[in-house]
Amino acid sequence: MAIVGLGGAVATTAVAGVELMKRGLIEKDGLPLAALDDALVGDLAPYEGIVFGGWDLSGDDLASAASGHGVLDGGRLEAAKPALAAIRPWPAFGNEEFCRKVSGDNVVAVSGNAEAVEEIRKDLRRFEEENDLDSVVLVNLASTERRTDPTLPVFATPEAFEEGIKADDPAVGPAMLYAYAAILEGVPYVNFTPSVGADVPALVKLAEEKGVPVAGKDGKTGQTMLKTALAPALKTRALTVDGWYSANILGNRDGQALDDPDSLASKVETKGSVLDQILGYEVPNHVVRIDYYPPRGDNKEAWDNIDLVGFMGARMQLKVNFLCGDSILAAPLAIELARLSDLAKRRGFGGVQEHLGLFFKAPMTADRATVPEHALHKQEEALLRWLSGGESTNGASKNGSRDASGAETPRGR
Amino acid sequence: MAIVGLGGAVATTAVAGVELMKRGLIEKDGLPLAALDDALVGDLAPYEGIVFGGWDLSGDDLASAASGHGVLDGGRLEAAKPALAAIRPWPAFGNEEFCRKVSGDNVVAVSGNAEAVEEIRKDLRRFEEENDLDSVVLVNLASTERRTDPTLPVFATPEAFEEGIKADDPAVGPAMLYAYAAILEGVPYVNFTPSVGADVPALVKLAEEKGVPVAGKDGKTGQTMLKTALAPALKTRALTVDGWYSANILGNRDGQALDDPDSLASKVETKGSVLDQILGYEVPNHVVRIDYYPPRGDNKEAWDNIDLVGFMGARMQLKVNFLCGDSILAAPLAIELARLSDLAKRRGFGGVQEHLGLFFKAPMTADRATVPEHALHKQEEALLRWLSGGESTNGASKNGSRDASGAETPRGR
Amino acid sequence: MAIVGLGGAVATTAVAGVELMKRGLIEKDGLPLAALDDALVGDLAPYEGIVFGGWDLSGDDLASAASGHGVLDGGRLEAAKPALAAIRPWPAFGNEEFCRKVSGDNVVAVSGNAEAVEEIRKDLRRFEEENDLDSVVLVNLASTERRTDPTLPVFATPEAFEEGIKADDPAVGPAMLYAYAAILEGVPYVNFTPSVGADVPALVKLAEEKGVPVAGKDGKTGQTMLKTALAPALKTRALTVDGWYSANILGNRDGQALDDPDSLASKVETKGSVLDQILGYEVPNHVVRIDYYPPRGDNKEAWDNIDLVGFMGARMQLKVNFLCGDSILAAPLAIELARLSDLAKRRGFGGVQEHLGLFFKAPMTADRATVPEHALHKQEEALLRWLSGGESTNGASKNGSRDASGAETPRGR
Amino acid sequence: MAIVGLGGAVATTAVAGVELMKRGLIEKDGLPLAALDDALVGDLAPYEGIVFGGWDLSGDDLASAASGHGVLDGGRLEAAKPALAAIRPWPAFGNEEFCRKVSGDNVVAVSGNAEAVEEIRKDLRRFEEENDLDSVVLVNLASTERRTDPTLPVFATPEAFEEGIKADDPAVGPAMLYAYAAILEGVPYVNFTPSVGADVPALVKLAEEKGVPVAGKDGKTGQTMLKTALAPALKTRALTVDGWYSANILGNRDGQALDDPDSLASKVETKGSVLDQILGYEVPNHVVRIDYYPPRGDNKEAWDNIDLVGFMGARMQLKVNFLCGDSILAAPLAIELARLSDLAKRRGFGGVQEHLGLFFKAPMTADRATVPEHALHKQEEALLRWLSGGESTNGASKNGSRDASGAETPRGR
Repeated sequence: MAIVGLGGAVATTAVAGVELMKRGLIEKDGLPLAALDDALVGDLAPYEGIVFGGWDLSGDDLASAASGHGVLDGGRLEAAKPALAAIRPWPAFGNEEFCRKVSGDNVVAVSGNAEAVEEIRKDLRRFEEENDLDSVVLVNLASTERRTDPTLPVFATPEAFEEGIKADDPAVGPAMLYAYAAILEGVPYVNFTPSVGADVPALVKLAEEKGVPVAGKDGKTGQTMLKTALAPALKTRALTVDGWYSANILGNRDGQALDDPDSLASKVETKGSVLDQILGYEVPNHVVRIDYYPPRGDNKEAWDNIDLVGFMGARMQLKVNFLCGDSILAAPLAIELARLSDLAKRRGFGGVQEHLGLFFKAPMTADRATVPEHALHKQEEALLRWLSGGESTNGASKNGSRDASGAETPRGR
Repeated sequence: MAIVGLGGAVATTAVAGVELMKRGLIEKDGLPLAALDDALVGDLAPYEGIVFGGWDLSGDDLASAASGHGVLDGGRLEAAKPALAAIRPWPAFGNEEFCRKVSGDNVVAVSGNAEAVEEIRKDLRRFEEENDLDSVVLVNLASTERRTDPTLPVFATPEAFEEGIKADDPAVGPAMLYAYAAILEGVPYVNFTPSVGADVPALVKLAEEKGVPVAGKDGKTGQTMLKTALAPALKTRALTVDGWYSANILGNRDGQALDDPDSLASKVETKGSVLDQILGYEVPNHVVRIDYYPPRGDNKEAWDNIDLVGFMGARMQLKVNFLCGDSILAAPLAIELARLSDLAKRRGFGGVQEHLGLFFKAPMTADRATVPEHALHKQEEALLRWLSGGESTNGASKNGSRDASGAETPRGR
Repeated sequence: MAIVGLGGAVATTAVAGVELMKRGLIEKDGLPLAALDDALVGDLAPYEGIVFGGWDLSGDDLASAASGHGVLDGGRLEAAKPALAAIRPWPAFGNEEFCRKVSGDNVVAVSGNAEAVEEIRKDLRRFEEENDLDSVVLVNLASTERRTDPTLPVFATPEAFEEGIKADDPAVGPAMLYAYAAILEGVPYVNFTPSVGADVPALVKLAEEKGVPVAGKDGKTGQTMLKTALAPALKTRALTVDGWYSANILGNRDGQALDDPDSLASKVETKGSVLDQILGYEVPNHVVRIDYYPPRGDNKEAWDNIDLVGFMGARMQLKVNFLCGDSILAAPLAIELARLSDLAKRRGFGGVQEHLGLFFKAPMTADRATVPEHALHKQEEALLRWLSGGESTNGASKNGSRDASGAETPRGR
Repeated sequence: MAIVGLGGAVATTAVAGVELMKRGLIEKDGLPLAALDDALVGDLAPYEGIVFGGWDLSGDDLASAASGHGVLDGGRLEAAKPALAAIRPWPAFGNEEFCRKVSGDNVVAVSGNAEAVEEIRKDLRRFEEENDLDSVVLVNLASTERRTDPTLPVFATPEAFEEGIKADDPAVGPAMLYAYAAILEGVPYVNFTPSVGADVPALVKLAEEKGVPVAGKDGKTGQTMLKTALAPALKTRALTVDGWYSANILGNRDGQALDDPDSLASKVETKGSVLDQILGYEVPNHVVRIDYYPPRGDNKEAWDNIDLVGFMGARMQLKVNFLCGDSILAAPLAIELARLSDLAKRRGFGGVQEHLGLFFKAPMTADRATVPEHALHKQEEALLRWLSGGESTNGASKNGSRDASGAETPRGR
């Protein structure tokens, strides 16, 4: 796993978790695929075989980074420390325009985006070679960038995008550079953040052409995960949702990034659309609040209030309060996504991995016009179907490309 | 619909609701089947065609009964009043041994259980004839009775049960008398309460032989409904449940009945088993509390606290607070069950209606040894399959009987 | 009571409540002084003797206004209807610059602020004469205006203020015009809103000179009231508050007004300062959110999360969820304030009524530099002391003026 | 401090806390008197000077006991370990009849209660001498015993009690033996549990005669503390309480003891009476539930729902959810009580310390017929008055005795 944001709370939690698994110190709680039948998941790479590398604007080794995040308790931090201390993030490519609240000094000096892409590709190759890896997956765990309009001409085709890179088009954010580099390199790309990443026609097309799996976006961990479990039940009982008020407090670097209104807008957007699709009507008063609240550190709390209309128009209320760990929920999902994307590559499924919608707040669809399924249980069924040998839902292309030629493009160099 | 407990809050709400639908004064909120495609539900009896009758230990007409329950607001009560006032419950068969907190004076004097069964059958026939009905469904909405041991010899076979009736066996409670009478009369039987009702081998066998649909038990309305929506999501995310504490407060006649420890035990039991089946392991600390709390009247509140173990053993908490209306949630489910049981009869599905598990806390299974499915979305899928022409889940017998002869017993008289 | 915002939810609730009290249809719940000993409160005007009039941008009679607010249930609305229908608000003076989300067509055309003040004074005189009243109190219940800087030169002295009125200084908002007119007219002034009202040195000085009681500001009804009850207890137990997150949802006209960021800022500000004064240190993470959420109408919900540090630095959480009625809580406080201000006038207490801090989120102090007491129980003790014959806390001037001459200025005309 | 239940979670937390204070590793959070002016609290023994000893049915040293309770996190446990390991509880006197769920093998074999009392007195003397202490206070932190009827003749006078001890009267529980021994020994006695302890006329009389301070009972830590902060505010606003439902979950040894219905009854009783005294009327639906819930260990959670009636009879709800640490809240209160009782002894205040009601759910009064004050802020005011030199509220006798002679009985041996 080559991770953008390797020094972050989610990434260091993932690294520590795999290390503790290797050493038999933890169970498989929180890892969605761990308890499934070997018939379904036997082809996935084992958790214990994962090797970590990646970029971060902070150059601290992962032991000191993890110690600052406060996710791991004393005993676990101690046990994982040697493994964490051995990893130091590679210099990263940030852009203050896209993520104002987060900065650092572990930065690569490049002349422009084209050179940045080249450097990322080199990093990926070097990572694979130095560690003698079977395969690499790039996972974006960096802080949320501000919104970009994915319908701009520069995002319309691979060619336009390439021109945009060369011309240092200001609409192209850092997350896209990593996505682009990964796809060019034949490395599956997973976007666990609300940033645009690969979610523009140009990069989707390119991924299809090159047979590279891309998946995203924005990991569905806490509040939204619960929404997509509850909303189907409300529909089953024909309880009409007249309002859904969601407040969130969190105190980690991710929360700090959201203190910038532009990044926040990006986040709220990916949270907003799930209800209407599941319920089949436009929920009239759906409000989502996210507030940076330092006392919690990496723990976050979601408070949902749902106003319901039942039989004879009677009004009822449902309130949900989730006290959870941001990274504790996210890290195992990021690990599973890496394993699944790797398997998809090996099975020859390129392009958008629609059967991975289970893990995302705003699941990508191959065709932007398609509204993705958000109901958690239906997403799970889609994944299980794919694991048992079925097609990717909504037609993520088999054999790397949706066009007639269909020739899978090998990871090319 | 012939209802046991016709003067109760759920029943009067159902009667008022149908009346208001007839008059176009309410929408179809809360009725799970109302929004489905006609292809699926077109054969069901229309809501507006339902006629209500039934028994109650109180002989008050339904207008004054409803006014006491406080479910309907002023305007709706006023609009439904003429229809409610026109209905007066038939004298009922109570048994203080089985339900200590509820009594009344609208009682039929009978020499014993055999005569009681005979009177119930007469009531059913008279109800059908006087109203020129196409069909009748008996729905038990009475207060919870104390537990009975369903493995007693008297419950083992139809023959033993018949002997028990004749001998006035003290293990036979009132709910069973109604169930027995309905089955003998060929009238589908729905048990919306935690009482045993038809859930003994003797009556299941008899229902199969006679091709009479029986369904139960204990309507899944509030807290348990949510449990069966949330638990699958927790399993999907591999979040291990280390404890689930459920407190309930409610202030209606139902709550008052549960002030008797024996009735309470019966209720708690049907609430308790859902988690283990869904999660696939025995939840170590599952506590269910129900308290009678008069300030709420027919409104009830459920408060759930779930202790979760996630990645690396980290602990998290999920809290759910549901402020709902007991009868508002229950009445539309009772109505749908009546429609579905009626359709099952017409389609030739007798015996236990396993595809109706969606509506029950403790779904009956044809074979007592079978553990029923509790996950809400899987129950819904089972119902939709049946509606679209499939078999009843787990094999509720088609054509009235599971034995080789298979001859459907027509509603016999 | 001459009320600014007479057609609003709080005002119509107050009017209806007094009418129902007159007719013996309701108890005295929610009226803080109703149950006190006559020795303390015997001199207050009786609830049943209150006569209502006032201004509103909407000219609807109060029956139709109340019916739109949805505070009163069917029966109570019906009973109060004749009394409500008989009252129609006088044309009002609005200013879109100060309150963007609320407008109406019941507006008096005036050439400028000086004429507006004159018209308000005429309204007050006419109200008193036509109803043959013993006395009049002006209560501001209008929607929240945007913030104004009370340290501007125009607000420094009565003379500067008078010049500002003549020159139509844009810093002078509508709430100030009413306050100014009331003070000039010798009518006690109560500001139940977060608008500046009389809370500038110029008007405080004038009120002192003229011996007119002024009290404010922003009624302390729900969440803040609870904060000022809980924070002292946390201090008593030496539990350190590391964060206090407050979310509010409400759906009435008041909530709609707060959809304007400027009005919201004004509201949040009065909510913010209470904790630091009570606890004696600056609470590090105090966040207050208010969101307009239509499903609730006049009901509002407050959700507070408090992060505590206890013995040995251990962290704990306290969560408070208040489901309350905005107008139900506010109306009786407004009534009590009117009665208390009237009594203060009669007792010769002019200027800022510091002993009325119990009723306000941001209690005015005679000296702007004085930090007011916020702890609910201490505020209550101050009021009880005053009622039993003591001085007004912090020295609200007895006999109308704080300067040496001390001659009370009679209500002058 | 000589503690009954020294190996328990509260006691080991107190010991660890004082040790960490000595070493400057923690602040004074949670210690109510720490931040007060020296003028008020300068005469109290310093926290850092406290020496701990005591009895427990388990003979484990406090380091291993603390490690089992899970109150201290890794770092704090490590730092306190040497001090904790050096303390081993003295053999204790249990009685399974009084506390069924808790047992142990660190038991002193005695022929009967008289010998037990003698042994306890010897323990107290030895503790003082071996450690060269200025004074000793006995604090009961043991698990809750079952209820005893304090109006039995054996509890009426010191003489009857002494006879009861000699005759091994079965109504005399272990907590009373410790209380009796302490009073005879002139050692102040603090009862932090709901057990009867010194709360019978015989022991109160004896304490007065001997000038020994006694204080109790049942530490007011979490839910009840909040009740006594909130109820006064509701009264201030004249919001009528129509119901108060309190659920508690906790998972420590204390919770386990409450799994015995007799101990639970004892606990619920001390929790129940606070509301009526504060509000001035009998709260109609006050329900208190306590459930043993192991997932939480020493953390406990209280969930309160309050049904309120406001203006015009409108109904509202207030919900409070407190996630707290049982021992974290209790330990500092036990420490303060020891310091205050010691000071009372030195100041010559014997008998019931009514000014310490601030710390108790069921404050003892010198006269059993007196209803104690429960409002938190009034209790605090009473303590502050006493600290600043006033009388003990409700007349706890000065100079050790309430009778005419007034001669203080020195700690007699």
